[in-house]
This record gives sequence, C-alpha cells and structure tokens, in this order.
Amino acid sequence: MTALMKAAVLNKPLDMEIKKVSIPEIKTDEALVKVKCIGICGSDVHYYEHGKIGRYEVKSPLILGHELAGDVIAIGENVTNLKVGDRVAVEPGVTCGRCEYCKSGRYNLCPDVVFMATPPVDGAWADYVSVRSDFLFPIPNDMSYEEGALLEPFSVGIHAMNRGKIKPSDRILITGLGPIGLLAIQAAKMYGVKEIYATDVVKFRQDLAKELGVTAVIDPTKENIDERLDALTKGNGIDAAIETSGNTFAINDALKSVKRGGRIVLVGMPVSSETPVDITHLVDSEHDVYGLFRYANTYPNAIQAVSKSDLAIEKIITHKYKLDDIKEAIEKARLEKETSIKIMIYPE
Amino acid sequence: MTALMKAAVLNKPLDMEIKKVSIPEIKTDEALVKVKCIGICGSDVHYYEHGKIGRYEVKSPLILGHELAGDVIAIGENVTNLKVGDRVAVEPGVTCGRCEYCKSGRYNLCPDVVFMATPPVDGAWADYVSVRSDFLFPIPNDMSYEEGALLEPFSVGIHAMNRGKIKPSDRILITGLGPIGLLAIQAAKMYGVKEIYATDVVKFRQDLAKELGVTAVIDPTKENIDERLDALTKGNGIDAAIETSGNTFAINDALKSVKRGGRIVLVGMPVSSETPVDITHLVDSEHDVYGLFRYANTYPNAIQAVSKSDLAIEKIITHKYKLDDIKEAIEKARLEKETSIKIMIYPE
Amino acid sequence: MTALMKAAVLNKPLDMEIKKVSIPEIKTDEALVKVKCIGICGSDVHYYEHGKIGRYEVKSPLILGHELAGDVIAIGENVTNLKVGDRVAVEPGVTCGRCEYCKSGRYNLCPDVVFMATPPVDGAWADYVSVRSDFLFPIPNDMSYEEGALLEPFSVGIHAMNRGKIKPSDRILITGLGPIGLLAIQAAKMYGVKEIYATDVVKFRQDLAKELGVTAVIDPTKENIDERLDALTKGNGIDAAIETSGNTFAINDALKSVKRGGRIVLVGMPVSSETPVDITHLVDSEHDVYGLFRYANTYPNAIQAVSKSDLAIEKIITHKYKLDDIKEAIEKARLEKETSIKIMIYPE
Amino acid sequence: MTALMKAAVLNKPLDMEIKKVSIPEIKTDEALVKVKCIGICGSDVHYYEHGKIGRYEVKSPLILGHELAGDVIAIGENVTNLKVGDRVAVEPGVTCGRCEYCKSGRYNLCPDVVFMATPPVDGAWADYVSVRSDFLFPIPNDMSYEEGALLEPFSVGIHAMNRGKIKPSDRILITGLGPIGLLAIQAAKMYGVKEIYATDVVKFRQDLAKELGVTAVIDPTKENIDERLDALTKGNGIDAAIETSGNTFAINDALKSVKRGGRIVLVGMPVSSETPVDITHLVDSEHDVYGLFRYANTYPNAIQAVSKSDLAIEKIITHKYKLDDIKEAIEKARLEKETSIKIMIYPE
Repeated sequence: MTALMKAAVLNKPLDMEIKKVSIPEIKTDEALVKVKCIGICGSDVHYYEHGKIGRYEVKSPLILGHELAGDVIAIGENVTNLKVGDRVAVEPGVTCGRCEYCKSGRYNLCPDVVFMATPPVDGAWADYVSVRSDFLFPIPNDMSYEEGALLEPFSVGIHAMNRGKIKPSDRILITGLGPIGLLAIQAAKMYGVKEIYATDVVKFRQDLAKELGVTAVIDPTKENIDERLDALTKGNGIDAAIETSGNTFAINDALKSVKRGGRIVLVGMPVSSETPVDITHLVDSEHDVYGLFRYANTYPNAIQAVSKSDLAIEKIITHKYKLDDIKEAIEKARLEKETSIKIMIYPE
Repeated sequence: MTALMKAAVLNKPLDMEIKKVSIPEIKTDEALVKVKCIGICGSDVHYYEHGKIGRYEVKSPLILGHELAGDVIAIGENVTNLKVGDRVAVEPGVTCGRCEYCKSGRYNLCPDVVFMATPPVDGAWADYVSVRSDFLFPIPNDMSYEEGALLEPFSVGIHAMNRGKIKPSDRILITGLGPIGLLAIQAAKMYGVKEIYATDVVKFRQDLAKELGVTAVIDPTKENIDERLDALTKGNGIDAAIETSGNTFAINDALKSVKRGGRIVLVGMPVSSETPVDITHLVDSEHDVYGLFRYANTYPNAIQAVSKSDLAIEKIITHKYKLDDIKEAIEKARLEKETSIKIMIYPE
Repeated sequence: MTALMKAAVLNKPLDMEIKKVSIPEIKTDEALVKVKCIGICGSDVHYYEHGKIGRYEVKSPLILGHELAGDVIAIGENVTNLKVGDRVAVEPGVTCGRCEYCKSGRYNLCPDVVFMATPPVDGAWADYVSVRSDFLFPIPNDMSYEEGALLEPFSVGIHAMNRGKIKPSDRILITGLGPIGLLAIQAAKMYGVKEIYATDVVKFRQDLAKELGVTAVIDPTKENIDERLDALTKGNGIDAAIETSGNTFAINDALKSVKRGGRIVLVGMPVSSETPVDITHLVDSEHDVYGLFRYANTYPNAIQAVSKSDLAIEKIITHKYKLDDIKEAIEKARLEKETSIKIMIYPE
Repeated sequence: MTALMKAAVLNKPLDMEIKKVSIPEIKTDEALVKVKCIGICGSDVHYYEHGKIGRYEVKSPLILGHELAGDVIAIGENVTNLKVGDRVAVEPGVTCGRCEYCKSGRYNLCPDVVFMATPPVDGAWADYVSVRSDFLFPIPNDMSYEEGALLEPFSVGIHAMNRGKIKPSDRILITGLGPIGLLAIQAAKMYGVKEIYATDVVKFRQDLAKELGVTAVIDPTKENIDERLDALTKGNGIDAAIETSGNTFAINDALKSVKRGGRIVLVGMPVSSETPVDITHLVDSEHDVYGLFRYANTYPNAIQAVSKSDLAIEKIITHKYKLDDIKEAIEKARLEKETSIKIMIYPE
C-alpha cells in the first residue's frame, strides 16, 4: 500500500483541485523533501490560464510549482551530501550531467533536463517531493524557508548578472519590475553595483523597487528615459541593461538606452514571435545582446549572499496561502498581476 | 607655393571628378604616404550614390577611399616606428588615445575618431595621404600592395572572429558573400576553423567562396538551410554565425541557424531601422548576439597571418583601374554589385 | 563462469606479467570496448619503475594503460549514443557529473574522478575495457585506431591552448619536446598559430618537431634563447609559453621568455617540490601563469580537427608492440626515453 | 622670470630637503594642479632609503610622491575635460596611447609611460604639478582630497580584483596587511565579496583590517592557516588569494591556500630574485597565478565606488604632516613601518 499525500493538480486550464496522490518513491541518489514553502511563478499562472507555454503543453493532469524549500525526511543509500533533518533549498531542474552542455558548465541548456512543473514533469505544490541530491542545497539556520524558496527566481537575477558580465562599476538599467526585475535589483546589489536604475509603470512596483535598493525608478509613460538616465548618470551613460518584461517597448528601451559597447541581457519573453528591433543601431553601437534561459551554478552563491549580507529578497513576498487555498491563491496571482508580486504557498 | 596632387573628388551624388588639390602637410607625428593601391568599399559607392550614410552626410566636396597601402615618402620629426621608404598598410581611423574606449582597448568606439572618407574627413583616392604614424604598419617585401590595402576589409573579418569568440572547433555559418563575407571565410581559416559554411544566392560569389576555402555553400532560395546544415555538420549544429549582408532574411537565418548557447555576430546593416526578430527564440536559446563596428588591434595580426600562411585574400579582387578612370570604376562597382567584389584603384 | 581475457598486470615495480583476468562486466550506462591500440604514457613508465606518482601508490596488482581506441562490442541497456560496432576513442577519466567542478565545466578537477591506470583503478592494457558511454567518442572511418588512441595525449596539448588562451596571432614557445611538447605543436597548428618556437636538447626530438610543424627549434645548451627568439620574432617577442618538461631550467626559460603581459602554461611537473622562480619578474611583467591538469571537453574537438585538417599526430609513434611483448615495450620506454616518443601496444 | 614653488627634493639616500624650484609649465593638453594632499608610498620610502628600486635608480636630485589630489588652477588650450577650479584626483602615470599595450587596454604595461617619482621623472611633493588632462579626474564635492589621493593605492586593490577575476561569491584570502592589503579589503567589498580573510602578524594591522571590513584575520605565526580557513569557510575553501607582502612565506601561503582551480594574484615583490615555489602543486591544482603591475582604467570606477557606497579608504591614514616637515614624515614612515600605514603630506 502506497502512502498518500496532498497535491494541487491542474486538470485543465482554470481547473485546479487538491487531490490525494502517492508520495514519490526515492531512488538511491535522491532525497525525499517535505515541502515547507513554495512560490507561485508566472509560468505556473500561465499554465493554469492557458494550459501551455510555447512548445510545452499540459496534456494530462499536472502538479505545478517549482520554487521551494523544505526538510529532508529520507535519503537514498548513495546520498552523501545530505542527511535527514537538513533544511534545503531545491533547484528544480535535474540535468543529465553527460551532454556537451552539462560537461561544459552550461547545464541549463541540457536537452534532457527534467524540470519541475514543465509538462509532463510534476512540480511540488504538494506535501512531498523527491529530488536528486545534488540539486538540494542545505540552508543555514538563520535562513527562512521563504528565502530558500526564493533562491529559484533570485537565481535568474544572478544568472542575468553573470550573462551580462556585470561589474561593480557598471551603471545598469532594469526594465520591468515584476519578481524577476525586483530580484535583479537584489542580484545587482549582491554584485556590488552602485548605480541601479529601473523602469516600470506601476506605482506599487516602483515603491517596492526602492525598498529593494534601486537608485532611481523611471516611469516611461511619464518621463523621457534617455534624458533622465543622462541626468542620473551625469552623462556617463548606461553600461548594461537587464530586460525582464518581454514587452516590445521595454525591449527597445533596453536596446536603446545602453551606451556604445554596452550589454543587454534579455530575460523576458515576448508573446509575439516578431519583435521589431533596430539592428543598425545594435551593429553601429557594437552592443552585446545576451539571451538568458533559467540559470546554472547559482544556488551555493545565492545562499552565501543571502546569509552573509543585508539582501532582503523576501520583501517581494506580497501574499501567503495554505496549499488548501491554492485555488484562491492562483486566482489572486492571475487577476492581480501588478500587485501580487510573489505569493507563497504552505502545504502545512 | 603648395605642391599639388591628383585626387578624385565627390562634388555631389554621382558627380565625381579628378582634380588637383594640395598635397597634405604632415604633423610631427605623421608620415606622408604615396598611395600605391586603394580599394573601393561599399561605403564609398553608397556615398557616391546617395551622398550620405545614416548620420554622415557629404555636405562639401569629399575625397573618398580608405582601403590602402603605399610607400612612406616623408616622416615628421617625432616619428620613430617608420622610415622613409617603408612599404606600409594604412589603418584609416585615427583615434584620440585618451577616452575611456581608447584606454580600455576598444578604440574602434572612440567618439573622436578621424576616419578617412567619412564626411567631413577626406579619404585617399589621391596621390598622397598623411597619417599618424601609429596607424601605419610596415608590410614585408613579399606582401603586395594589394594585400596591404585589403587588410582593411580583412580586419572586419578578423574583428568578427574576435567579437564572436571563434574557436578552431566552431562550426560557423557566414551569411552573405560580398567582400566582407568572403574575407570572413579567410579570417575563419586564419583562426583554424575547420568547418565554414556560407549562404548566398549569387553563383559567382558561391564559386569564389569555394576558392577561398568555404566548406560548403548553401543557396537559401533553393535549399532548406536547416536541413542542409544538419546534414553537413552531422547533427552537431552551428556554433556561431557571422551575418554580413544586412538583409532581413539573412539576419533571421543567422539568428535561427545557431544551436542553443550559440553566438551571432551582426556585421551587415539593414536599410530599415526596424527588423523583425524572434526574441523569444533568442532568449530561450540563450544566444549571444554581438554587433560589430569596424575593428581594433587587427593590423599586426593580419600582416602576420597573410605573410606566414597560405591565405589568399587578394582573390577577392575582380577589377583594377587607374585613378584617372575612377568614374568608370565606381560605376562598375555601383551597377555590377554582384560580380565586382573588390575593385582596386592605382593612382600611378 | 566468468569469461577471461589477457591483461598486463603490474605486480610491483619492474614486475609486469601477462595474466588471465575476468572480462569486465558492463553497467547499464557502459559499453564494453575491445581494445585495438593503446599507448604507453610517461606515467605508465613511472608507475612501472617507481610504483607510485606523488600521492598515488600501487598497493596491489594493477593494470596500466589509458591511451586507447577500440571497437564497441556490447552496450548497456541505457546507452543511446553508441551502437555495437562503433569504432571509438576512449576518454579515460570518468567523472561524477555532480560536484561543483563537473557542474561548472572543469570536470578534470572532479575529486571523485575514476581515472584508468591511476591506483587503485585498473587501466586498459588488456583485451577489453568497460567505460561509461559518455566518455566514448565514435571516430570516423578514415581515422586510425592509432590516431584515436593519441587523442588522449593530444587532449593535453589542446587543453594547454585553452588554458593559455592561445590565439592564432600568438607567437608561442614550447619548452620540452617529449610526446606532450610535440603534440602541443600540433595543437598550436590546430589553433591557427603561425609562429611556433620550441626548445629541446635532443636532436631526434628537434627533427621530429620540424616534421610536426614547428617554426624553429632552439637548443638551450648551444644557443641564447632570448637572442634567438628576438631574431626569430623580429623583436615582437613571445606571447605565450607552454612548458612541458618539468625541468627547472626549462620552467625558468618559459617564465623569462614571454613578453610583458604574456602567459605561461605549466604542464610538466618537477620532481622537487621547490623550484626557484623569479617572482619579482613575474609581478613586474604582469604575467599570467596557468597550471594544467589533464583536460576537459577536448575529444569531440580533437576528432574534428584530426579528421578535417592535415594534422599528423600519429607521427609521434616511434615503436609498436604486441600486448604479449609489453615487458619489452615498457623497458624500451624506460631505457630509451629520448627516442621512444610514443610506443603503441596491440592486444591482438 | 620663472615663478618658484616649494618642493621636497631627494638629493641622495637619506638626504631630503625643501627647496625652491620652478613651477612646471603646462603643455596645450595639460593642466596645472595645486597639490592639496599627497601620500607617502612604500616606494618613496625605498628610494629615500636605498636610492633605487630594481632597475630604477636616483642618479640626480628627484622630487618623490605620486599619490595626490588637488585643485586645477590652469589648463592648456586643448583641454576640454576639465576647468579651472575642479578638484581632481591625479593618476600619476602618463602613457603614450599608441603602443600595442595602450591600444589593447593594458596601458599599465606601456614601455613609454612617464610615471611620477620613478627616476628620472619628478613626483609631486611640491606645491604644483602639471599633468596631461586625461589623467586628471574630477572628484565630487563630498569626496575629500585625502580620499582623492588614496585612489592611487586603492587602484592597486581594484586592479587586483580585476586581475584575479574576483566575483562576489569568491572566498578570498589577502596575505599581508600593509596599505595595499588593507585597501584590497576595501576593493573586495567594492566587488561585493562576502568572505574576506587575511593574514598578518602585526596586531595593529589586524585591528585596522577588522575596521575595514575583513571577515577574519589569521596570524600565521600563531595559527594553522589551512585549518582556520577550512573552519571559517565551512570546508568550501578559498577561491582566490591576493598576495601583497612580497614575503616568501606569505607567497607560499597564498599559493597553497587556494583550492583546486583557484586563482592567486601576486602584488608584493620579493627582495630575492629566487623564491622557492611548489610548481607541482600549482600544476596539479590547475591554479592561475597572475602578476600585477600598477593598474589601468581604475580611477573613474574608484571615484564612483568611494562616493556612492560606504567604503572608508581614508581609515588607513595614520599620520599627517606639512610638506615642510617631510623629513620627519618620511623618517616616521621608514622607522615605524608596522604602524604608520599611510602618512599624508600637505603642501599648504
């Protein structure tokens, strides 16, 4: 007889229910994690609303959720880096370790990755989840489960710094202040950046950005970005931009705001497959444009940074719900996108 | 009384004439170069036809031409790296040496560069030209003036390799086989690249590419690029693309043909300021896109490569004219763009 | 009943014998390889002579040998990248894929690597060997087993180019012309290097270096290295040195020969744990010194290079023996170090 | 009639006097700076004591001093980046801007640099100094002259971070806590480093290091460095070491303390030209060792960092003297090396 647990299952778009499902078995190199805290990501909301993202489609009932921390309650016989009782953050994509991408340090591009809550792989809006032990990272006692869970979206911010070769002296612009944009501010602070500028149109987000350490926020609907940045940087210009919104205007703001020889990291994905871009400007300016897909090798660094400095990533949490109330939580996330920055779910 | 020399002066679009003008004076850190051989560049043709390129406009009579080699016939009193009689290749953009770009090794982005044949700066379709001595590079006796002159467009090819971080194991795609695309093939060979693929629709250029060492050429109007590249690379895929045409289709071919984690160098400039691009693909693939503007620190390396290996950059020369026949030469370049790859002009 | 095979077993220093041992079993992700050709490496000779290398000691009978190519004759049920009948080169160090080094692309530093012929791990001087399939690389039909086997030491040469950030325009110096020094010449050619200088005192090796493409060889006991290099490079100087001998004089030659801002890759290991080095010169010259340990991510690139260019790595093979004659072969390697560059062993 | 000013002139070792000398003339691209504050550097003390450093020898009376800030009181006709009245920090080495090092971004290696207080070039222990304007950097009103002067040694710390490719997640070890070691702590903080460890034997320096933000200090004469670092880093190990003392033991501590694949930046210069080093360990560990010579492109970044964060570089100032009391000041620096970290001189 298999033991059962509670899980939030997406049957089809907008149809989510709490069900009893089997507790996952663990393999010899896996650990079973009791989920203590898990976030709602924009991708979860998108699957909930539309049943698919690009090439990934929910064809059978699926458990969502991939931003989590919890307790190790059982380990496989070959696990040596963990012990029962460890509090852990979970890196939700398990890679093959054997392809050219894995072997060259870019495991985020592994074609055989098994990534939580990406159909047909179940996520972790549930009591328990099993994970290969090298993707579990013990967190120190003074780090909360919330912080542990937020290491996942924070990792995107860190990876944006790495992709953009961000140096402490860079003057950077972040376009879009959703969870990723806000955590990119924190990542920039982690990297010692002294001048962090951002754009967004929503007052609530602008205010939160200030709490998180932005140097100045620009509302592109009310101000001239170029003029403001020129004044703010005293004519030095922007060295690098991090685009997190996927919005066509913001993409072009990012591409146009950096100075000659500058860098642009594109994180946000547009809905359309055709975004008009000024290639001549890009060529003439000798810009670097970097796409970004998830992250790699960020968790240990993120844990160190959050525990050994005054970062405050948990400030992006705006709401908290029990797993039993997941329906209400995801509707909040769906309908109040501008103000529900990060919603946390608690299985217990 | 000032000595006079012959020069080809562009009075206004399509109106070019041979005139007598003053031989340039040299400053203490300059040398006077007798021009032996000088090419026609696409930008020369464009100024000839349209009177402007982007923000640069021919407002008063202008001497064109910036791809040249010649003999040093006089040097200023502070010149130590050259002597009268040296055969030299000329790097045509003299930079300030003092701005942040110059000091950090990216002098091609110097805002105060004085670049030949970019209005209002005169070029070198003339008997003589004066150049600051650190932009003159002695060429060995076994290097022809033609090769010396071609170091200028070849430098763009080399800079494309540098910008694209091209390694010898990279499988690369070059889109567009004009002079820059063809010389990018030679630059790839200089960098030890073993698999060089290219696209172009013109038979003449395809054939020339084969002479210059391309592994295979694809005609995008007749073949499926993806399928061909997959077969040619045995499923390994393209690591990096060099786009040299500025054509919208070619830009998107370049962006779409490289594998995940790959790199695209954009050299060609589109006419339109809005090119539709699939940003989602770029982000999801974690691509790097690099703009390219001219070149920096290429001449010594180019001289070494051309003189110490079996490169054959001079094979792109299709026609030769006397300076007196410049009108005929530039009309040839204007009207027969597909087959007049590189036209050389001889003042003597 | 277990099937048996022939293997050369080192019982204790200088005591090697051919024995019957069990044919290895394969795991689900492994393949069984029939060894067709396998080299003798300097480390094999060292274990044979001294029973240990640094921290590694032969405490129980050990099969040596780790430079090999062969045929796949069986595959585990989870193997998808190979099929029975494939001719393969074998990368002899199987890494964990899960530690920070593996995940960041430097798997050669994996603390849990299982490396052939490093005590207590058996090597492949035997009829068969089992290997995890992601460390087996199919070689094309026109590549010999000898070339396949030599990809192992050639990988060290390639890794030296990567560690040294070698560019095609670099003027490089290779100190020491044993197998690694000679293959470093070939690696430099693979990387498009135009000026490759080398030092060694043995005429036979100097001659072989010329066959392999060195630009010039210097005998440090007969010539002044600095003066010769200055003349050979026309005063341009050496950009990078690759030290392969472990000899104190050669190490200092390497460190002293490169120009300001240059790079030195140290591959050879000295016997002594104290080598006197001029740190002030290193600091004042702002040199980079890179240690090198084995290699990572080289096999696919090496296969491409050897099969698609005119490299001739097999020219370093000086002798060939049957496995049955291993005793004679290894004595040759031990006693005639200067002229037995690479000895190949054939189990059949 | 030439105007005169006061200057401290070193006639020969230990013989320094205040003299009247001519106020320097300025060229068209220079500015005349009234010196407000200038430090004593270890090299000044060394010239004062010994009359030479390595290849540089004081053969005729010389003005020392090269760490300074002041006011612009006159500018040449071609100066555009400054105006009279600007408060400026002075970068004391004026480079040619035309050699391969200058053009490729490593101008600190320029063979034609004119560096203050390096014989035979006069320094700035004087009322006025003339400097090419691109080496003068306006400092904001809230930055003190002391901070401006300290940008020079702080630049060495910043350059150490750049040479060592220091990332915010690196665990670093700084050996030696003189002015450079202490400012390297501040540079590490500027780069977002969270774990900064250091070694020194002097209690005064250890205490100052703590004030400047070190995570922990180790006294190598009283503690086992490896054990302490293992405990402090919780077994993670040291990613990079910055050696600033030139002491043989410290150099070997730095080389031995970093983990596999780690980096060591050597800043301190030993007295002896032969330092025994364990090359086998360096090779086996695949370490990177980087020499460091002065700095390049640091001033704008240093100004931004000091003015826009809570760095406190001025805390290394231990004493202040009038220029008239230079003799007393330099004797203090010479005789109390362990406690006179940085002495500031004021011409007024």
